[in-house]
Amino acid sequence: MTAEEIRGLIIRTVAANGGHLASSLGAVEIAMALREEFDPFKDRIIWDVGHQAYAWKVLTDRKDEFGTLRKLDGISGFPNPEESKADASVAGHAGISISVAEGFAAARDLKGTDEHVVAVIGDASISNGTAFEALNNCMTACKKAIIILNDNEMSISRPTGALSRHLGRLIAGTKYNRIKEGVKKLEKALGLGFMHGAIRRVKGFFKRMLIGNAWFEQFGLRYMGPIDGHDVAAMRIALKVAKAEERSVLLHVVTKKGKGFKPAEEDPTAWHGVGPFDVENGKVKSKTGKSWSEAFGDALCAMAQKDERIVALTAAMQDGTGLRRFAAEFPGRFKDVGISEGHLVSYAAGMAAGGLRPVVAVYSTFLQRAIDQIIHDVAISNLPVVFCVDRAGAVGEDGVTHQGLYDIALLRAVPNMTICSARDEEDLRALLKEALERNGPTAIRYPRGKIAVSNVDLSDEEIRQDAKIAIWATGDEMEKAEAIAERVGAIAVHARYIKPFDSALLAKQRANGMKIVSIENASVVGGLGEAIGADMRFGWPDKFVEHGSISELEKRYKLDIDSIAEVIKHGA
Amino acid sequence: MTAEEIRGLIIRTVAANGGHLASSLGAVEIAMALREEFDPFKDRIIWDVGHQAYAWKVLTDRKDEFGTLRKLDGISGFPNPEESKADASVAGHAGISISVAEGFAAARDLKGTDEHVVAVIGDASISNGTAFEALNNCMTACKKAIIILNDNEMSISRPTGALSRHLGRLIAGTKYNRIKEGVKKLEKALGLGFMHGAIRRVKGFFKRMLIGNAWFEQFGLRYMGPIDGHDVAAMRIALKVAKAEERSVLLHVVTKKGKGFKPAEEDPTAWHGVGPFDVENGKVKSKTGKSWSEAFGDALCAMAQKDERIVALTAAMQDGTGLRRFAAEFPGRFKDVGISEGHLVSYAAGMAAGGLRPVVAVYSTFLQRAIDQIIHDVAISNLPVVFCVDRAGAVGEDGVTHQGLYDIALLRAVPNMTICSARDEEDLRALLKEALERNGPTAIRYPRGKIAVSNVDLSDEEIRQDAKIAIWATGDEMEKAEAIAERVGAIAVHARYIKPFDSALLAKQRANGMKIVSIENASVVGGLGEAIGADMRFGWPDKFVEHGSISELEKRYKLDIDSIAEVIKHGA
Repeated sequence: MTAEEIRGLIIRTVAANGGHLASSLGAVEIAMALREEFDPFKDRIIWDVGHQAYAWKVLTDRKDEFGTLRKLDGISGFPNPEESKADASVAGHAGISISVAEGFAAARDLKGTDEHVVAVIGDASISNGTAFEALNNCMTACKKAIIILNDNEMSISRPTGALSRHLGRLIAGTKYNRIKEGVKKLEKALGLGFMHGAIRRVKGFFKRMLIGNAWFEQFGLRYMGPIDGHDVAAMRIALKVAKAEERSVLLHVVTKKGKGFKPAEEDPTAWHGVGPFDVENGKVKSKTGKSWSEAFGDALCAMAQKDERIVALTAAMQDGTGLRRFAAEFPGRFKDVGISEGHLVSYAAGMAAGGLRPVVAVYSTFLQRAIDQIIHDVAISNLPVVFCVDRAGAVGEDGVTHQGLYDIALLRAVPNMTICSARDEEDLRALLKEALERNGPTAIRYPRGKIAVSNVDLSDEEIRQDAKIAIWATGDEMEKAEAIAERVGAIAVHARYIKPFDSALLAKQRANGMKIVSIENASVVGGLGEAIGADMRFGWPDKFVEHGSISELEKRYKLDIDSIAEVIKHGA
Repeated sequence: MTAEEIRGLIIRTVAANGGHLASSLGAVEIAMALREEFDPFKDRIIWDVGHQAYAWKVLTDRKDEFGTLRKLDGISGFPNPEESKADASVAGHAGISISVAEGFAAARDLKGTDEHVVAVIGDASISNGTAFEALNNCMTACKKAIIILNDNEMSISRPTGALSRHLGRLIAGTKYNRIKEGVKKLEKALGLGFMHGAIRRVKGFFKRMLIGNAWFEQFGLRYMGPIDGHDVAAMRIALKVAKAEERSVLLHVVTKKGKGFKPAEEDPTAWHGVGPFDVENGKVKSKTGKSWSEAFGDALCAMAQKDERIVALTAAMQDGTGLRRFAAEFPGRFKDVGISEGHLVSYAAGMAAGGLRPVVAVYSTFLQRAIDQIIHDVAISNLPVVFCVDRAGAVGEDGVTHQGLYDIALLRAVPNMTICSARDEEDLRALLKEALERNGPTAIRYPRGKIAVSNVDLSDEEIRQDAKIAIWATGDEMEKAEAIAERVGAIAVHARYIKPFDSALLAKQRANGMKIVSIENASVVGGLGEAIGADMRFGWPDKFVEHGSISELEKRYKLDIDSIAEVIKHGA
């Protein structure tokens, strides 16, 4: 397939299914060059944050199923070895590909086999702490790995940090397009074959052509680049050189995010991850209603007007977490630290200790990266950091790597931590206000997507005096819980606070001989149901949950209204 | 106090109480210079991995209580703001001080106050990913912070990684002792006062004297060093320059770990953390018996003889985790990645996917730093990585930052994860063997300290056919559980596997109307008791647990045999 055909397929598919468009369009030629130079089923290609890997999927035995992207039982939006042997590893979180590659390479070295190991990592991901740790260990971790730095000068949000600036200067300071001219001559000389003499000549050519780079060379890597990441021939030659090199190589390629789709080229951030859109005019078919992220951003802006101590922090997710407005209105009180979740939380701890009220907006799945900082830097000193845990619960189409199912279990064991969940926008506002007044850390969880407009009144246990069953539910599950309560003659209890939960109410219900049921948008293990010792517990099972729409997944795991009501009826 | 007096006090105290000796001896003059140049109660001094901060404690209002170091209700072995306002932050884990300092500095910038913020970080800690993230953000995180890199060329274990080598070359490549001569002249000119003109002259002097350093300068920091970290006068001048500088400064000082105590100077690794010892001859008063760490190391060596796929990994804790013997016997199959827990786990994931059987030896408290890597890189793909979770449970004198109380709660929510706990050496061996045969991740937990030699036979539920109570206990709590069972006429059940636990046995006991009691060396929140739905749950409470001997803490929290037996008797 040509690059154009691949791009067409990706654009059509994402237009229909939603997905990560801009990054994957940028990495089409990288995937093509890798496909030509390596054996996808023997060599191990690790795509960091696999949202750049759509072309790789198309080129490695999944072209025909690609239309099922992100659909239930269809192609996953991220690499997964369960889907294809061409996907060396699960990759939905950023910054870990170099470590994984070094692990594969170390295994190869010990086994004495000869496969190549390649990590493809973006310029934002390489600034992550784990990626740095892997670079720092690179000389001793394995004999050799090839690292392709896919530099699109614009990762999920704007790049931050010294390394980004360094890369920017590097690109600006060199005429990497010169390589195009040289490549034509070289192609002929090399015949794209693989001969020792030719490679030696090419190496010499590269050395003259490309600038040295102290940043990467100090890790013991051989640096090559920057070269044009949309020039397959140039990349193939570079990869041949990289294959022949004895030590580890960092191949710096420059690409354009969104390449080949004008709206995405012009606003790659907006086109990072999108819902279905119209290919002709680039108009996103947005669902009506306000998202939880927007509601959070609006609430925080209102509070920041009144309280100067409030600062907002994010790790490369300004837009995703709804902080675009805050960043514009309070630029001096907004910090995007890049994909640096550990630093994010320790930095917030210092701010809180210094008298500010930092609000950390982070997806549940990425909060997993800072559990130690939460315990050690925030919770031990009982510092007033507010964690606004976005995408808490099932995330639907993003699938297994992005599920926000573990935050309750992970945070509930942390002393001093308050955990709550919002049932609607008003509640989110109130919880945020309460959190900002609390002298200790708070996590407020809310799910991905739009806020459901509830038309049921807040349940009151007085409503059904004779109810034998109390259904406790986390915030966004309340609507469901109320519908179920209606059907089975139970009362629904909003577990607004999960830790500490309303133990007086629970004791009273227990004393009245009520049966306690829990419904939570989280893993049942370690969650609300365990906390309150519910007799029946409904939550996501103790397995990794695949991609698909949330309603499809709820049906599959019997967490839809009908299934739960049925089980309660039979069990009660 | 003179440096000699401070060292004497530290040596005598650690000789009596045990503690972290070598690092604190190395940082005496740094603490003295900081004490002179800053206001400990206004300026914020953040000690990374606070085990270097004993002199700071002595110099800031805790000289008289210092003899209570690490004792119950005495001085903590690590900085803690609860103990003194001179401790800016909790600091027991490595690599977070720069982030915290940037947070304090950002708060200062927003508040418009003028306190100085200083992080003191070791050469091993600065190679941690979070420290890198903080350096990478340094230009935008705050207007200015001072970072003192305490480079002793030898952190907890031998330094690993490119950055360490870089620092080594830096020290080797410069005559930093020249500064000593210069300092004498400068002292006179400057009168140790603080005048603009003098500072400018000193700055010029420094610029001529000290070498540039691209590594740090690329982060936008002003690099100063390396200078002699045992020369208070030189450091005071450097700190004056640093205070006057407008942008952030990295002051590179070189110290000798263990300085002033010959045995520690000669073998700083062995004298990193020690039990009580004889000051005269440096002989450690060791307890008899084999430690859990040694037992693990021995078991792994035996298995590695038979299975070439086994590799052992540690994050700067070769000796602490009992891997010294393994490293010597299987150098090609041993990797110390430095203080890089995130990389450690992702690297292990790659190795496992590549066909090896990586065994990750890590303290429970540091495993907290890699929860996301465990979920994302290891568990989703169900890779056979074995986590040998050392120091799981209460750690005693190391106190709040090092308690291994959360691993069960954190890991139990992770699908595909098996969690088990060993009751003695034989059991540890057996569990390790089972783990290495399992096609998925396993965590084997065992506590700090020596293995108790049990003289009770393994309990069998047949023993007391008429028992009405079953006491389920995690491995190392079995001895206690058996003693309690004896007293209260219960049976003791070894919860060898915590996940999945023996649900058939539990169901049988429930069917027989037995009351279920749990005892665990972990937080009660999210632990074994919750997992099995025990009627009575004994474990560490939902609060941060302070330092003291384990038996003292058990008494305080009513987790000793008498207290538990009493509660069961009254509750049953």
